[in-house]
Amino acid sequence: MRIDGRNNDELRPIKFTRNFIEYPEGSVLVEMGKTKIIVTATIENKVPPFLRYKKTGWLTAEYAMLPASTLKRKNRDIQSLHQDGRSIEIQRLIGRALRTCIDLDKIGEKTIKIDADVIQADGGTRCAAITGGYIALCDAMKTLIDRGEIKEYPIHSIVSAVSVGVVEGEVLLDLNFIEDSKADVDMNIIMNDKGEFIEIQGIGEGASFSREHLDKMIESGVAGIDEIIYDQKLVLDSITKEIGVNL
Amino acid sequence: MRIDGRNNDELRPIKFTRNFIEYPEGSVLVEMGKTKIIVTATIENKVPPFLRYKKTGWLTAEYAMLPASTLKRKNRDIQSLHQDGRSIEIQRLIGRALRTCIDLDKIGEKTIKIDADVIQADGGTRCAAITGGYIALCDAMKTLIDRGEIKEYPIHSIVSAVSVGVVEGEVLLDLNFIEDSKADVDMNIIMNDKGEFIEIQGIGEGASFSREHLDKMIESGVAGIDEIIYDQKLVLDSITKEIGVNL
Amino acid sequence: MRIDGRNNDELRPIKFTRNFIEYPEGSVLVEMGKTKIIVTATIENKVPPFLRYKKTGWLTAEYAMLPASTLKRKNRDIQSLHQDGRSIEIQRLIGRALRTCIDLDKIGEKTIKIDADVIQADGGTRCAAITGGYIALCDAMKTLIDRGEIKEYPIHSIVSAVSVGVVEGEVLLDLNFIEDSKADVDMNIIMNDKGEFIEIQGIGEGASFSREHLDKMIESGVAGIDEIIYDQKLVLDSITKEIGVNL
Amino acid sequence: MRIDGRNNDELRPIKFTRNFIEYPEGSVLVEMGKTKIIVTATIENKVPPFLRYKKTGWLTAEYAMLPASTLKRKNRDIQSLHQDGRSIEIQRLIGRALRTCIDLDKIGEKTIKIDADVIQADGGTRCAAITGGYIALCDAMKTLIDRGEIKEYPIHSIVSAVSVGVVEGEVLLDLNFIEDSKADVDMNIIMNDKGEFIEIQGIGEGASFSREHLDKMIESGVAGIDEIIYDQKLVLDSITKEIGVNL
Amino acid sequence: MRIDGRNNDELRPIKFTRNFIEYPEGSVLVEMGKTKIIVTATIENKVPPFLRYKKTGWLTAEYAMLPASTLKRKNRDIQSLHQDGRSIEIQRLIGRALRTCIDLDKIGEKTIKIDADVIQADGGTRCAAITGGYIALCDAMKTLIDRGEIKEYPIHSIVSAVSVGVVEGEVLLDLNFIEDSKADVDMNIIMNDKGEFIEIQGIGEGASFSREHLDKMIESGVAGIDEIIYDQKLVLDSITKEIGVNL
Amino acid sequence: MRIDGRNNDELRPIKFTRNFIEYPEGSVLVEMGKTKIIVTATIENKVPPFLRYKKTGWLTAEYAMLPASTLKRKNRDIQSLHQDGRSIEIQRLIGRALRTCIDLDKIGEKTIKIDADVIQADGGTRCAAITGGYIALCDAMKTLIDRGEIKEYPIHSIVSAVSVGVVEGEVLLDLNFIEDSKADVDMNIIMNDKGEFIEIQGIGEGASFSREHLDKMIESGVAGIDEIIYDQKLVLDSITKEIGVNL
Repeated sequence: MRIDGRNNDELRPIKFTRNFIEYPEGSVLVEMGKTKIIVTATIENKVPPFLRYKKTGWLTAEYAMLPASTLKRKNRDIQSLHQDGRSIEIQRLIGRALRTCIDLDKIGEKTIKIDADVIQADGGTRCAAITGGYIALCDAMKTLIDRGEIKEYPIHSIVSAVSVGVVEGEVLLDLNFIEDSKADVDMNIIMNDKGEFIEIQGIGEGASFSREHLDKMIESGVAGIDEIIYDQKLVLDSITKEIGVNL
Repeated sequence: MRIDGRNNDELRPIKFTRNFIEYPEGSVLVEMGKTKIIVTATIENKVPPFLRYKKTGWLTAEYAMLPASTLKRKNRDIQSLHQDGRSIEIQRLIGRALRTCIDLDKIGEKTIKIDADVIQADGGTRCAAITGGYIALCDAMKTLIDRGEIKEYPIHSIVSAVSVGVVEGEVLLDLNFIEDSKADVDMNIIMNDKGEFIEIQGIGEGASFSREHLDKMIESGVAGIDEIIYDQKLVLDSITKEIGVNL
Repeated sequence: MRIDGRNNDELRPIKFTRNFIEYPEGSVLVEMGKTKIIVTATIENKVPPFLRYKKTGWLTAEYAMLPASTLKRKNRDIQSLHQDGRSIEIQRLIGRALRTCIDLDKIGEKTIKIDADVIQADGGTRCAAITGGYIALCDAMKTLIDRGEIKEYPIHSIVSAVSVGVVEGEVLLDLNFIEDSKADVDMNIIMNDKGEFIEIQGIGEGASFSREHLDKMIESGVAGIDEIIYDQKLVLDSITKEIGVNL
Repeated sequence: MRIDGRNNDELRPIKFTRNFIEYPEGSVLVEMGKTKIIVTATIENKVPPFLRYKKTGWLTAEYAMLPASTLKRKNRDIQSLHQDGRSIEIQRLIGRALRTCIDLDKIGEKTIKIDADVIQADGGTRCAAITGGYIALCDAMKTLIDRGEIKEYPIHSIVSAVSVGVVEGEVLLDLNFIEDSKADVDMNIIMNDKGEFIEIQGIGEGASFSREHLDKMIESGVAGIDEIIYDQKLVLDSITKEIGVNL
Repeated sequence: MRIDGRNNDELRPIKFTRNFIEYPEGSVLVEMGKTKIIVTATIENKVPPFLRYKKTGWLTAEYAMLPASTLKRKNRDIQSLHQDGRSIEIQRLIGRALRTCIDLDKIGEKTIKIDADVIQADGGTRCAAITGGYIALCDAMKTLIDRGEIKEYPIHSIVSAVSVGVVEGEVLLDLNFIEDSKADVDMNIIMNDKGEFIEIQGIGEGASFSREHLDKMIESGVAGIDEIIYDQKLVLDSITKEIGVNL
Repeated sequence: MRIDGRNNDELRPIKFTRNFIEYPEGSVLVEMGKTKIIVTATIENKVPPFLRYKKTGWLTAEYAMLPASTLKRKNRDIQSLHQDGRSIEIQRLIGRALRTCIDLDKIGEKTIKIDADVIQADGGTRCAAITGGYIALCDAMKTLIDRGEIKEYPIHSIVSAVSVGVVEGEVLLDLNFIEDSKADVDMNIIMNDKGEFIEIQGIGEGASFSREHLDKMIESGVAGIDEIIYDQKLVLDSITKEIGVNL
């Protein structure tokens, strides 16, 4: 049995608090066990230079951790004048993942800024940021429809992410921080609700892993994502009904 | 009557959620109306160079706003590679204010890092950060005592802060964002529970103000601070009892 | 008696050397005792983005100290790649203070850049920078009139500033560096020639202060500012006569 | 047939020029088709702070592109004062990959700096940097042995990397720049000579991919890596013979 | 005799490998003994702000060293967030030197970016960068003519550079790194093929030098430049013939 | 005749105001016509890392211009987060030049910081900074002797600098800003009082120059430096007498 009593293939409890922050077009507090992240989706009426005059929109993401969100306090990026390498990797991943579920042609020359700010980190923050980012993104699109700024709901699939790893030979789903520290392999799987892969990253943490472990991790991750998508659908039920889409 | 129905000398509801974040020695979610700030107090076992080998401690503060905490999204400091001037002013103020209530000799060569991260801003964030910072600071000191790292509770007075301003000729207590935008004068008053001033900043926002208005604002602020200190005492009741201090 | 022989309510000698630098539209060397600051006012024919197309002007200030202007040599900001927090606070204050005395609508889409560069610091630099900045500003406006670039003299009041503090229980006017180091309270008072307050900042330096001390400091500051305004009027006499304004 | 006449499962010609630069302990010019990278391994006699006094060494990597190495000239990082996000991702990957093949305890308190500088980029630079980095690393370790600075050859496995992708439904091995631009999926596979995975990154470029494609890409990558390892062994033949290891 | 067997007035072997990099409009690998530099000339269809709408072009240069190009590994500029002072000096020199040989009016509103990246440094890199930069520049201009983007070949003279110094009282031509380290005077001479000086920099390295040594160094440098120009003409022979210019 | 009435070989009036700033060990206001520079020499009791434990000292220089010191206001370096390239070139030159006149072994492990801050620029600032820097340096060494921190006066020669150029075919000594803007060649000559060269920099400003012009410029510069050294000796007369050295 795992350190927090879970089975190997068991997710931690997921909780989405929609509209956690008042100002942005969409926002959520996503909790995955003790991991807590505020994710917001803000709309700006301009696009980056490489898209100007192309009548399409853009989605980009930023990821950061509050200084006291980790066991050992983490200095702010501004102190060292450069953004943490890990944060850059993660925010690029969040952006790529969420861009796959939306038809950006349908929002016109707007930029969707996803901000994921971790207020408490207990493993799996990049996956929770993607899963929660999807919720904030949907709410922001709903806001644009309500304001009459776009006509059609531009989201065509659900994006979800989960971590999985190998700890002492066992494949564990949804690692918490302590498990993550001991893992020989750490894998992040991002998928959509059509059972397709969006991104898959398997990292041998100072170790290597066999094809067999790779396949088992994918299997466990696919099952975990199924459950998360169920929760995402549930919490977005009101949008689905109002918009009339079947996501 | 004011935009949110308050009387001129009426505070917004204050709420302190202690231990909001698990890792730092002290933490609080402070809410003053719709202004919401996570304030944490983290202990580091070293002091800045100018205090080395002096057998005393230090307290310093950092203040930042989440990008989506304001009406118009605010870029992160790291984007422009320099910290926002207003944030620097505020964090210096928070540090100065909280250093007045603690006997740093009693904590040894440690640094207390106060982090105030605004998650939703509706006016008065610097005052709420000080008021909440006091709570996080007390909890952190209690943690040190519980861990046996210090012997004596080093806090000797309560620090509290409130804003007051002149809007259309009226002296208003605890301005929200809309009132603040329209104010002719904006004053921040920081005091302790002995009725003494710690800091007072009165700024004519593109205007000037008379001695009479100055005195009225001070009067209103002093009354407001009395109420806030009452709330601070209430929420820290458990510490007071355990430690046996009469703050 | 004070360290330099002054009475408690006595200013140090003030000296303004107008047109100290040849290129900018206005410039002054302001000396307040041994504190010496070069303040210049340069006109640029553009405004910051937030004012574009609004047919009004802007005034902004920058403050810096030469490395050898202080007792212990101060590194240049560029060394650490971030501007000193204290300098940012001060330049924001200078800008706010001087913006209150000028009708920026009357200068059109221009920016007035006030540069205050301390060449020797002996306390009270922020106040001297404001007091001298007013002189440089007036000269710059006179230059614009002489060049035919503006029609009406846009300045409508005199801005002046002085520091006052409590040292060993005594209220002292215009602190020098040694007094400032020992002060329990340090207050900066910025006023105009109508006896109105523009800004007031009282800081308990690791201490707190009573309402009585607050009132005494304000009283002493108000008297000091009266004298400084007298000197400012004197040195600008030629402008007053030419322009025909009664400042 | 592919744009450059290759079969779908065919690598571009690989060429290693050992000792390309004279000063560092190990260096190589690695060419994979028109992709050309100088990779060097330099030894420094210190370790990063987190490893001090632990009697072990460290390996870290930096990756950069010469401005004219790409079709459209790329500005130097120093221009914008922040390192390119993609470069950070890649250099972290290079470091992680190469750390898996070496027993850092055996080199003592030294840091191995791998510098990968792309002089011409035609796709697959991160994989070529890893493959070539392995050669430079081996030469650097041989240098340490020749100098008598270490006793035992610390490398225990061969690290190799290859890219594979899906272009117009076909699984292609070792994508060049044009193929990479058109790919729906882009996967980087890093393995060792025991047939184990070190890292695997599959990215749907604005698209998603099926389990079937995932398996086919892995299969193609595994075969490609077999060939590259053959070339790596060949070029390091002299070391293998002298050291007497059977890698 | 010198450390590498040369006579005092003898250059090291020079080698130019034209079109070393495929993408930029001009590129060369220049080798001067063991000093090796990749110099590229890239064309951008815009000019810096100070030249906009003036119907003329610009040429600017950047110089950098790969980390492992020197005996002791050199950190990348981005690490310290400021460009190395020596590099700035050198790139300004390269730009000034090459701007003297080209009629920038003839290329229209384009910018020629010269990138000199040292891959192995053994003294004389700034001179080799200028000498090689001339080759890359010529090739880039030839490319523009071939593309029909300019009509007339804009280069009107050859630019060449050489170092000369005084080591133990002897005037030595083309110093290598070891000689340079021991030199009392270090001089860089930049000239054109008309025997005119473009720039001359003589630096007493912690020492001073007489008029006699100055004259001898100039004499030696002038002779050395004659030889280098001969080599430059040779390697550009094909351009000269095609264009029909007599450089 | 020249724009300001001087003969071609005539210097502008030089003026040195010693001890212009009170805090640093040496300081001077140097004026060369309308060029005005505050140069200070501050002593720090440490040396840079590369000199630690070598029982010798160091001298380094920093050069900057006040924003309003030039015809068109110059932004502060901190704005763009990088130091102006020209300033870096100049401060490196000042440091090299002044290091030639002092025996740094005689000051022990101290660093002499020369700060040259231009308050008004009218051409020739780098030369005036060196010439004035020599004065500040002498005063700082005298201070160290007076304080008993060093025993022997470590300065063994006078350093002086002058600019010379070719304007419309005429060789002009000590160019002012307008002449400098029109010059075809700009040369800076740094010499000592033994008639030896310390540094010589001749720059064809977009043009080239003949050997004849080179020789004439050197001749004119040598004569100019003779005069400046006379003035330097005069102003330092008191030191010479007290120390008993014959500089």
